[in-house]
Amino acid sequence: VTGASFPEAATTATPTRGRPRDPGIDALVLATTRELLGEVGFAATTVQEISRRSGVHPPAIYRRWPSRLALIEDAAFSGLTEIRIRPTGDLRRDLGRFVRAYERSLDNPAALAAIPGLLTTYLGDTAPPPARWLHLSVRPQFYAILDAAAEAVDPDIDVDDVFDVVQGTILARIMVPAVRARRRRIETTVEFIVRILERR
Amino acid sequence: VTGASFPEAATTATPTRGRPRDPGIDALVLATTRELLGEVGFAATTVQEISRRSGVHPPAIYRRWPSRLALIEDAAFSGLTEIRIRPTGDLRRDLGRFVRAYERSLDNPAALAAIPGLLTTYLGDTAPPPARWLHLSVRPQFYAILDAAAEAVDPDIDVDDVFDVVQGTILARIMVPAVRARRRRIETTVEFIVRILERR
Repeated sequence: VTGASFPEAATTATPTRGRPRDPGIDALVLATTRELLGEVGFAATTVQEISRRSGVHPPAIYRRWPSRLALIEDAAFSGLTEIRIRPTGDLRRDLGRFVRAYERSLDNPAALAAIPGLLTTYLGDTAPPPARWLHLSVRPQFYAILDAAAEAVDPDIDVDDVFDVVQGTILARIMVPAVRARRRRIETTVEFIVRILERR
Repeated sequence: VTGASFPEAATTATPTRGRPRDPGIDALVLATTRELLGEVGFAATTVQEISRRSGVHPPAIYRRWPSRLALIEDAAFSGLTEIRIRPTGDLRRDLGRFVRAYERSLDNPAALAAIPGLLTTYLGDTAPPPARWLHLSVRPQFYAILDAAAEAVDPDIDVDDVFDVVQGTILARIMVPAVRARRRRIETTVEFIVRILERR
């Protein structure tokens, strides 16, 4: 799996052999995949069905994405790649913007359908999965926020572990029925992350 | 949904009409359901298939569990109902025992297969789901641990919200491939929960 199938990469004018790729087709396939995920769920969102509904032939789809899973990740988590938080050094404020954007990018029918399906698929794999959606572009921004507020952050804390808590808490907030139903303010989550991080 | 289908309830000698229930059949159905979940996954673990493999007829299964989902919850999360942490007042130590037991009870093939399937099913429901597995017997023990260590715990903290973080972090630790692969020590999670809770 390479970064070549990311939406932003697809629209970059890098010289390739043959005809230039049509970004309109990428967008059409991604939108169709999102539609299907939300309507028929993960298992029924096959390349065949995506092809049927979008009118894009399977070989053209596979030229753009190496696998069905890579396409589903790109389609369901396109919002994740759009998160751009510029750290200001105000830990609570920056984390608030980050956590809100992170949750918002996952809280849509396509992502909610894709997440359990992908988790199940990856758990069954013996090789470590790509699971790009959980990391790429988002994790570095989390680190950048902590770096910008370094004087407020406990230097002994393992930021990877803290990111796992952020990830797990957001998954619970959007996926676990009882947590979702309570609709607690996201500020509570932010406050908890600050408590974990802060220098004492 | 009542508590009647819980394993401990099933073996309680409450007077019922007709023949007394055979706890051996309950155990057989539960074990078969666990087996199937681990082998063929959530979607293929149907009452028909459980019946075929266990030799227990569907009506006998439905006499014991109101629905396929209730049976899957009981089978996959039986370990959860066995958690019995007696609080000592030592917050870090009690939480450590609790979080370890909680994670261990979910980190098995049956539960790992059931969790994404149940989450997907419940997300599609309009009525609030039972989702007993996420609460019953476990949540009260978490509160009891905090109560026993009340002088160490910030009185302004919302313990429901903290439990959601515990839940989400454990889900991420067992389900999310990258987090699972790193196999971080559970003590780190415990330390983070203590940091959130502690009076300052």
